[in-house]
Amino acid sequence: MKVLLIGANGTIGSAVRKELEENHEIISAGRTGADVTVDITSPESIQAMFEKVGKVDAVINASGATYFGSLEEMTPENNEISIMSKLKGQVNLVLIGHSYVNDNGSFTLTTGVIMDDPILTGASAAMASGAVKAFVQSAAIEMPRGIRINNVSPNVLIESMEKYGPYFPGFDPVPASRVALAYRKSVEGGQTGQTYRIY
Amino acid sequence: MKVLLIGANGTIGSAVRKELEENHEIISAGRTGADVTVDITSPESIQAMFEKVGKVDAVINASGATYFGSLEEMTPENNEISIMSKLKGQVNLVLIGHSYVNDNGSFTLTTGVIMDDPILTGASAAMASGAVKAFVQSAAIEMPRGIRINNVSPNVLIESMEKYGPYFPGFDPVPASRVALAYRKSVEGGQTGQTYRIY
Ligand SMILES: NC(=O)c1ccc[n+]([C@@H]2O[C@H](COP(=O)([O-])OP(=O)(O)OC[C@H]3O[C@@H](n4cnc5c(N)ncnc54)[C@H](OP(=O)(O)O)[C@@H]3O)[C@@H](O)[C@H]2O)c1
Ligand SMILES: NC(=O)c1ccc[n+]([C@@H]2O[C@H](COP(=O)([O-])OP(=O)(O)OC[C@H]3O[C@@H](n4cnc5c(N)ncnc54)[C@H](OP(=O)(O)O)[C@@H]3O)[C@@H](O)[C@H]2O)c1
Repeated sequence: MKVLLIGANGTIGSAVRKELEENHEIISAGRTGADVTVDITSPESIQAMFEKVGKVDAVINASGATYFGSLEEMTPENNEISIMSKLKGQVNLVLIGHSYVNDNGSFTLTTGVIMDDPILTGASAAMASGAVKAFVQSAAIEMPRGIRINNVSPNVLIESMEKYGPYFPGFDPVPASRVALAYRKSVEGGQTGQTYRIY
Repeated sequence: MKVLLIGANGTIGSAVRKELEENHEIISAGRTGADVTVDITSPESIQAMFEKVGKVDAVINASGATYFGSLEEMTPENNEISIMSKLKGQVNLVLIGHSYVNDNGSFTLTTGVIMDDPILTGASAAMASGAVKAFVQSAAIEMPRGIRINNVSPNVLIESMEKYGPYFPGFDPVPASRVALAYRKSVEGGQTGQTYRIY
């Protein structure tokens, strides 16, 4: 299959690429150092990416920024970071992209454990993931031409413990390679509307 | 208690008012015909409302617009209706309002059944409710001064069947009076971080 992988150079994205590249043609996308340049916070940039890439069989998104900060520090303004990127960025990839996906193709988006198991400073990120999860479940019953849509909700990764560990006390981190399997299940399997929880 | 009720003149809001007005002082808010004027899509308007009302014991929101339309009709632009109102409107009520809520007070927000049980044309509304539900669960562990936060997720109301019935085939509608009980449980009880599903 022809797989468009946004965020391909990231921690999760590179594990997904490794899992899929043997059997699929991967087109990487991101703001820097990828086959195609895209900023998912801009609908015009998403449109331009799909125009450039053309028809694909699968779209995987492993990018999306979120705001972390205590509830008292959280404001309508800094909450926009999560809304613009992880929330609207991912939803808009689907709204703009579905006409570029071949019949029976798929979308796989990324959420995260804290929408189910909250952490201090995580309310904005939880909000974005909760939105994407509910959107995926609902959009699945309306996707045209047999196109499927799922989301992968990873626990904190072993590979990210140095960066995020202090925010996740008592969480049992998972290897990126195990998270990558869920993206493969979504792309190569037949399920739709699912949240793959890798906890 | 002093209860600020936004959307007090709506279908749910008027049932909530009826349930609470015997034992509490209700201050109604909305864009028209209420004690205080507010448009929840504007952070400035939310701030002005709290400045005018001062300290309260409970904030209930029973307002919030959403976009309904098929996934193929849904665009980044019309999806903004749900994001601006039901999603950011409710989150911003909390971010801006918590300093106006007395110790051990509460917020009660409104989501809806389709975040759990999707309907055709409901992906944008499901997204907004999913965001609010996850935000509530996460914000609950960080609310200052014992302030609690919950959300009520109503099924379609019997009172709204004429307007929304065709969108909810096979759903078992619930009376507004039963939905109103959940807001009372949130305001007068001790729970936090909950989603009260009235299905
Ligand atoms: N790491 C974890 O432990 C973990 C756990 C649960 C959930 N997640 C979620 O998984 C997703 C990816 O996490 P990660 O740790 O793999 O992130 P990461 O290592 O920072 O990688 C993010 C990737 O996305 C690209 N990117 C960032 N913003 C973009 C934008 N606006 N448009 C297009 N591409 C963009 C980045 O490349 P450029 O900068 O070149 O664009 C990079 O390749 C995030 O949503 C995160 O919340 C991560
Ligand atoms: N009705 C149902 O069957 C049902 C089921 C599940 C969930 N819900 C959810 O419950 C909420 C209320 O539904 P409803 O049927 O009671 O709505 P409704 O009858 O239309 O009432 C909405 C109320 O909110 C006010 N309002 C609307 N936009 C506002 C804004 N931007 N700022 C401040 N106030 C605003 C309206 O008054 P003004 O126009 O004067 O501002 C009105 O009083 C919505 O989020 C809806 O999705 C409803």
